[in-house]
Amino acid sequence: MSLLEAVHGPRDLRALSAPQLAELADEIRTFLVGSVSRTGGHLGPNLGVVEMTIALHRVFDSPHDPIIFDTGHQSYVHKILTGRQEGFPGLRQKGGLTGYPCRAESPHDWVENSHATTSLSWAEGLAKAYRLRGEDRTVVAVIGDGALTGGMAWEALNNIAVGADLKLIVVVNDNGRSYTPTVGGIASHLSTLRTDRRYEPTLKQIKQRVRSAPVVGGALYDLLHGFKTGVKDILAPQGMFSDLGIKYVGPIDGHDIGMMERAFESAKNFGGPVIIHCMTVKGKGFRAAEEDEADRFHAVGLIDSETGEPLTASPRRTWTDAFREAIVDIARADANVVGITAAMLHPVGLDAMARAFPDRVFDVGIAEQHAVTSAAGLSRGGLHPVVALYATFLNRAFDQVLMDVALHGQGVTFVLDRAGITGPDGASHHGMWDTSLMALVPGAHVAAPRDERRLVDALRTAVGVDDAPTVVRYSKDPLPPELPAIRSHGGVDVLASPADARVLLVAHGPFAHLAVEAADRMGAQGIPCAVVDPVWALPVNPALVELCGAAELVVTLEDGGVSGGLGAALALACQRAGVWTPLRHLAIPQEFLDHASRAEILGELGLTADDVARAIVDWALESTAAKVARTAVAEGPRAGA
Amino acid sequence: MSLLEAVHGPRDLRALSAPQLAELADEIRTFLVGSVSRTGGHLGPNLGVVEMTIALHRVFDSPHDPIIFDTGHQSYVHKILTGRQEGFPGLRQKGGLTGYPCRAESPHDWVENSHATTSLSWAEGLAKAYRLRGEDRTVVAVIGDGALTGGMAWEALNNIAVGADLKLIVVVNDNGRSYTPTVGGIASHLSTLRTDRRYEPTLKQIKQRVRSAPVVGGALYDLLHGFKTGVKDILAPQGMFSDLGIKYVGPIDGHDIGMMERAFESAKNFGGPVIIHCMTVKGKGFRAAEEDEADRFHAVGLIDSETGEPLTASPRRTWTDAFREAIVDIARADANVVGITAAMLHPVGLDAMARAFPDRVFDVGIAEQHAVTSAAGLSRGGLHPVVALYATFLNRAFDQVLMDVALHGQGVTFVLDRAGITGPDGASHHGMWDTSLMALVPGAHVAAPRDERRLVDALRTAVGVDDAPTVVRYSKDPLPPELPAIRSHGGVDVLASPADARVLLVAHGPFAHLAVEAADRMGAQGIPCAVVDPVWALPVNPALVELCGAAELVVTLEDGGVSGGLGAALALACQRAGVWTPLRHLAIPQEFLDHASRAEILGELGLTADDVARAIVDWALESTAAKVARTAVAEGPRAGA
Repeated sequence: MSLLEAVHGPRDLRALSAPQLAELADEIRTFLVGSVSRTGGHLGPNLGVVEMTIALHRVFDSPHDPIIFDTGHQSYVHKILTGRQEGFPGLRQKGGLTGYPCRAESPHDWVENSHATTSLSWAEGLAKAYRLRGEDRTVVAVIGDGALTGGMAWEALNNIAVGADLKLIVVVNDNGRSYTPTVGGIASHLSTLRTDRRYEPTLKQIKQRVRSAPVVGGALYDLLHGFKTGVKDILAPQGMFSDLGIKYVGPIDGHDIGMMERAFESAKNFGGPVIIHCMTVKGKGFRAAEEDEADRFHAVGLIDSETGEPLTASPRRTWTDAFREAIVDIARADANVVGITAAMLHPVGLDAMARAFPDRVFDVGIAEQHAVTSAAGLSRGGLHPVVALYATFLNRAFDQVLMDVALHGQGVTFVLDRAGITGPDGASHHGMWDTSLMALVPGAHVAAPRDERRLVDALRTAVGVDDAPTVVRYSKDPLPPELPAIRSHGGVDVLASPADARVLLVAHGPFAHLAVEAADRMGAQGIPCAVVDPVWALPVNPALVELCGAAELVVTLEDGGVSGGLGAALALACQRAGVWTPLRHLAIPQEFLDHASRAEILGELGLTADDVARAIVDWALESTAAKVARTAVAEGPRAGA
Repeated sequence: MSLLEAVHGPRDLRALSAPQLAELADEIRTFLVGSVSRTGGHLGPNLGVVEMTIALHRVFDSPHDPIIFDTGHQSYVHKILTGRQEGFPGLRQKGGLTGYPCRAESPHDWVENSHATTSLSWAEGLAKAYRLRGEDRTVVAVIGDGALTGGMAWEALNNIAVGADLKLIVVVNDNGRSYTPTVGGIASHLSTLRTDRRYEPTLKQIKQRVRSAPVVGGALYDLLHGFKTGVKDILAPQGMFSDLGIKYVGPIDGHDIGMMERAFESAKNFGGPVIIHCMTVKGKGFRAAEEDEADRFHAVGLIDSETGEPLTASPRRTWTDAFREAIVDIARADANVVGITAAMLHPVGLDAMARAFPDRVFDVGIAEQHAVTSAAGLSRGGLHPVVALYATFLNRAFDQVLMDVALHGQGVTFVLDRAGITGPDGASHHGMWDTSLMALVPGAHVAAPRDERRLVDALRTAVGVDDAPTVVRYSKDPLPPELPAIRSHGGVDVLASPADARVLLVAHGPFAHLAVEAADRMGAQGIPCAVVDPVWALPVNPALVELCGAAELVVTLEDGGVSGGLGAALALACQRAGVWTPLRHLAIPQEFLDHASRAEILGELGLTADDVARAIVDWALESTAAKVARTAVAEGPRAGA
């Protein structure tokens, strides 16, 4: 029986000897590579925190002492150590283990959202609550160096610093790369530490001293701290933290369980906030991951557990691939176009542009607010920035889009990848808020192209708009085939136009294809249905309103939240124009949706061709029968039928 | 003729001698106190930056070199020096000078929004654009120590640090208080500098050295920097900035024009980003302001220009006053209730609670993101936080409200002051986005109470909701009189219920009073109109939907943006329930609205009792005449009539 099989909870770690812990770490790595290579998931980040997570669970009394993982995809080892090994074959699958902490899975999971840089604020709030309620608990936040580039970390540290008696420990998991090498001033400082020739021998010296020191009270803490003081100008980023007034320990080897345990013990006994800076290697123990510059092992699909090579046949071309190529062409043609990414150069597809025009792509760190306002500044200085983000992260910069870009009339283009239902990353990763948010922004232009050709067209149009925000959004799905228009009606693409159609289906993005399929099924049932794609959803095209006026029933179909969005904007425009055709919305319900595949979730929501056709046929019959010429809204057949 | 009268632009400053500049500073202070005491406005911040602004305009070539004021209410002196003295009698009044920078007023104004902590990101973007375009300009950002507590500052500094060749100068205006004394680790560090007995003599020494130094190339810079190095452990917060790799100069006396000019010159010649740390006194030269602990002179109404005493009769009781008292009672009754403010303890009315329960009110700095997620943590730890903000600043923490509070089902109450049209602070201060944002948040509860009694009721209800975000929003207007309900219909308050009413007007907050007035006028015109207040707008009460089903025309009336909000949510709920009564919305158009008084803006938007009555009568007649039983939406009589 392996050591790992005998670990059912953190308490089972206590009895293990140092050699056994090292063996356990090896077993966990073997388990992770074997399991995640079969299911896909976040591999690199978890291979880097094996020893750290073991040490945390030996020192702290979880769940009495909350351990909060920032950007929770680094919690797999924590899941393994808290009794969830058996769930890994179902990782990120419908009904199976989530890819992030999950309160429904375990009392050891405290914070389950996956947006970065929130852990310090959560921890500060929890620690304050325990102080006020007189509960003796220590709160631990584990945060990567990448997440430290986010402004919330600064806001939280600034507050933690004034809580001299808060029992709060910040463990910095410093692997020098968030997705790709971490950027910015703090990163280059940390990087200096790592590359300084004096670092390795110094670390060895620290290790020796620590090992020979008795772990009593704050002695080790003082030792570490005293020792550090001597080399601080060379090695430690303590200026930053000590100016704030927070105790700092480090850097220490994040793969040395004994050393981390001693540091954690001392910090726990210190009685005030402490930052412990651990140096780790992302992907540790899996050579393909350790050596990959582009960090493709941050999150993987099915891979060969030896070589790391993808097992699926050559993946289908994605929207991201199409953007990657198109933006290079656009940048070549217009020297004023620049690109911005928030620490996701490769995932959002700005890597090719960065290679072609290294001066014109800026990675600002995990800092969406700065990304957007810096873009406003670039625009004010005469350039046209293209800010490429995952759709869900636009939430984090709503005020900046509104006040810095739109109020100032700056031409900034937002390219939103992973828009609509995503799937296995769960509730916080669905891109279902962006269109509704943009509908609140005066003057914003929003397009969801339906194929690669329209994507390229939309991008070209967007970079030509110099006085307002423009958004081009697309899905995580593979690129669909080209879907040509039968004709254009004042800029609105007509995709299906059967004779005698009294129902008009308005759809865009990947759902344009769904709409055409649904219309085919409706035709077969004797209810001819026209399909149009507005191309630009916002502002609403008067030609679309005109088409609505000629129909007897209008249904909008969109891959976004039902509150706000294309449907709501079209309703507003119709009613302003005195167009009273009944209007119904098929969209994502305004709820937090559990993880599953995109297809499974769309199926559950009734957003398949069959379901859509059935819902509209029912409405059309009802409408014809009763001539109830009124507006109806529903977020899907489930609720609307 | 005074010196001030001869200054029509920055160039006129160049010829003045040092004594003349000191005289000019005095004249500007006299002018500011005299003028702002007659119009109201931001007095304290501007009295603190008189010399700094003079020095900036003597050294930099505005507008070729952009000067960006963070939280632009500190730009009055800049306005005076760029030819806008004559506009001050109309300050913040309709058609007059804005209270913030304004691009339409002057090419010297670059960024006009008034949300804090954006200046560094704007400046970084501009400086990058100039570098890429080969334009030789220096970008200057002026930011207060308060705004440095916001996370965007950290994100921007982290990016500025890697731009070694960016021509960008950050002037920190350190007066130790944003609205009230600035909180947090960085603040206490800066505060140590100010109170250190060595500071004053050292500053004198620095001054003497600087004065005797020739201003050639980077010599002064080196001198300052070299000198600073010697005292850095005692005096300078350079650890923080030098860890980031940004040159730091200071602290220097922000009321010494000559010294600042020399520092600015050197920084300008340095060729890379420089932080210049100036110590200033908020309210300088106006004794009442300098001595006021509560910082009541940050923004003033009409005051006596000698004593600072308010000139208006005892001000009418406000919603804030009512909240200030109610929250103390609630906190007394429930030890788990805690308060959070983002650097606005007095303006949001948490000051009384902070006096009564000093351990239970947290001022987190200008850090809305942290405020919200820290609140989620406090809630997770068993407390019930009440986060009191101006409504417009909720925008800055949308993702945190959504992901940290709502997704995690935490009971956090948001009290949103200055909701709806505010007025003289202009486009960025209208609280017209909050309800629309909250309508996107699954599970959120939103109330806009119509009088003090309902405010207290709503607060009590809100702090009892422990599994979802709750919002209580109210206006800047004085408290209206109590408006009793005739009866309750399943939780919906019926405010007017004339016989034979076929029109139903749904309104809440201060607009409930407007609705009752409008209904009176309609009654006089023979169109009886019922008025109801949903009390809780979100989630929509099924009893309200039932009432809508019994009406022939429903009109919603709300002090928020027309996209989203009460009207849109009610439309969704009605249509889900199969209620097909035509529904129209009267609300704020989704536009950026210029500054003017609240009454003037409401008048322009057609949101007066007369206009509302006229619009509804027209719709009712149309509806009756044509029996067009369809839904209509318009953002006001202006667009909808």
